[in-house]
Amino acid sequence: MEFVTFLRDGIQLPGLLTADRQRVLSLEEAGLGAWSTLTAFIADAGPDLLARAASASAQSEGTPLSSVQLLAPIPKPCHDILCVGVNYRDHLEESEAAMGKIAHQDSVYFSKRAHIMTPHDATIDGHLDLDPCLDYEVELAVVIGRECRNVAPEEAEDYIFGYSVFNDMSARGIQMRHNQWYRGKSLDGFAIMGPTLVHKSALPFPIEVDVCSRVNGELRQSSNTRLFLADIPHLISELSHGITLEPGDIIATGTPAGVGMGFDPPRWLKSGDTVECEIQGVGLLRTHIR
Amino acid sequence: MEFVTFLRDGIQLPGLLTADRQRVLSLEEAGLGAWSTLTAFIADAGPDLLARAASASAQSEGTPLSSVQLLAPIPKPCHDILCVGVNYRDHLEESEAAMGKIAHQDSVYFSKRAHIMTPHDATIDGHLDLDPCLDYEVELAVVIGRECRNVAPEEAEDYIFGYSVFNDMSARGIQMRHNQWYRGKSLDGFAIMGPTLVHKSALPFPIEVDVCSRVNGELRQSSNTRLFLADIPHLISELSHGITLEPGDIIATGTPAGVGMGFDPPRWLKSGDTVECEIQGVGLLRTHIR
Repeated sequence: MEFVTFLRDGIQLPGLLTADRQRVLSLEEAGLGAWSTLTAFIADAGPDLLARAASASAQSEGTPLSSVQLLAPIPKPCHDILCVGVNYRDHLEESEAAMGKIAHQDSVYFSKRAHIMTPHDATIDGHLDLDPCLDYEVELAVVIGRECRNVAPEEAEDYIFGYSVFNDMSARGIQMRHNQWYRGKSLDGFAIMGPTLVHKSALPFPIEVDVCSRVNGELRQSSNTRLFLADIPHLISELSHGITLEPGDIIATGTPAGVGMGFDPPRWLKSGDTVECEIQGVGLLRTHIR
Repeated sequence: MEFVTFLRDGIQLPGLLTADRQRVLSLEEAGLGAWSTLTAFIADAGPDLLARAASASAQSEGTPLSSVQLLAPIPKPCHDILCVGVNYRDHLEESEAAMGKIAHQDSVYFSKRAHIMTPHDATIDGHLDLDPCLDYEVELAVVIGRECRNVAPEEAEDYIFGYSVFNDMSARGIQMRHNQWYRGKSLDGFAIMGPTLVHKSALPFPIEVDVCSRVNGELRQSSNTRLFLADIPHLISELSHGITLEPGDIIATGTPAGVGMGFDPPRWLKSGDTVECEIQGVGLLRTHIR
């Protein structure tokens, strides 16, 4: 079951992708009630609503995907995105080679601002005038389903709504220049997620899925979430100790080796490039650099 | 002219403090229209609305301050708070003595999450079970008035709505443990702002005001915003290059020397302590540690 947000006749609607992946239904058309945003639905989505959503998505009715504009599933998150740095062993090694020693006995947490989240197949401003060191990072995004605090690792899955593909686009020069990574991660357009939000029922837990990225068709990153340094239960548990997590919050779980910064010399993205981020069972997220 | 958000009969209302500081009026009672939040008003507050607000705040009508509950002026910001690290020369020196060398030829930017912003005179959970190294930081908060991008320093004031007192409460152990400062800055209750949002017309620009903090009545920090390493026009200009700033965005401009971390041995806050942050012409913000 995949949730979407789309624009139809100038109106932004939360909805469902049909099981054949050819059509969309607004949540209202699916008989699930009128919701202004997917986040509002997520906050209220109990077992009954979810069962009805699953049954509605099995239909073949709806508006053809080709006649709507897909937005990011959560176009305007309620908080900055909770990001995990260097959460794969191989990426830790390449990052330290490029940036120097990173204290890493504990997970690295930072945040990424999203003016508006960038959807699938969009062309973004690479901000190459501000920083020529533009880089990609494929990540599994976890979307929180219920407000929670002080979650035990073994209960973490209960608070997940679903998953999406995330590209944590980064301006490496700016990321390094200001000591903290925030600004270089937060330029307009750099929070890229989609195409859909896949409900957690579609994936086994713990999640062991292949994660890869390609630049202009060339494979750059290729790993599997089983190689996380800190797994999803650990991340949700640790972040929720002291911080209330809210429905619609996005946790970007870190990227594996193979980013542009890790090559010698670095292979920065340039104008005209296309990046594809793909996660097994979650989706393929394509981005073009203007 | 001072804007507030308050709770009356269980309803959250954006409003004005009267000039005698004894009463509050909702924006609707002040004849300014019905606004769900102060952020929505700020986004639309042109010269005419502001002139009417100034005239309404000069009245002596309204609900006595003592019979409402003041919330933080912006209880739920649209993005995490944009924070500036080590932006006073004296605090840079004490921070490096405690934490080691900080790359600082460029401003340090990080963000702080606010589940809900803590108002004036509230008692917060110090999260001392998670981290005994609790610390205060008085800061001048700048609230953005109009959406902007690529602002020149000489135009920065045009995009400011007003100012408030901010306490960037920090769990120093957690701040250091995760390499990036985000988690230690973002625990529930640690984003403290108020009591009011003072319109920029009340202060000359550039702003040169005394900034101080006291713990249990003892002066700890005492400086003046003229000692900023990067001034407000520089901060707004640099942050807005590549990042769209939005009405209601909060920029916390950094703290001067005298935080608990800077003492030898450090003087961490403990249960029962009261912190007062005061900025000349902006207000006094008191916080109690549970």
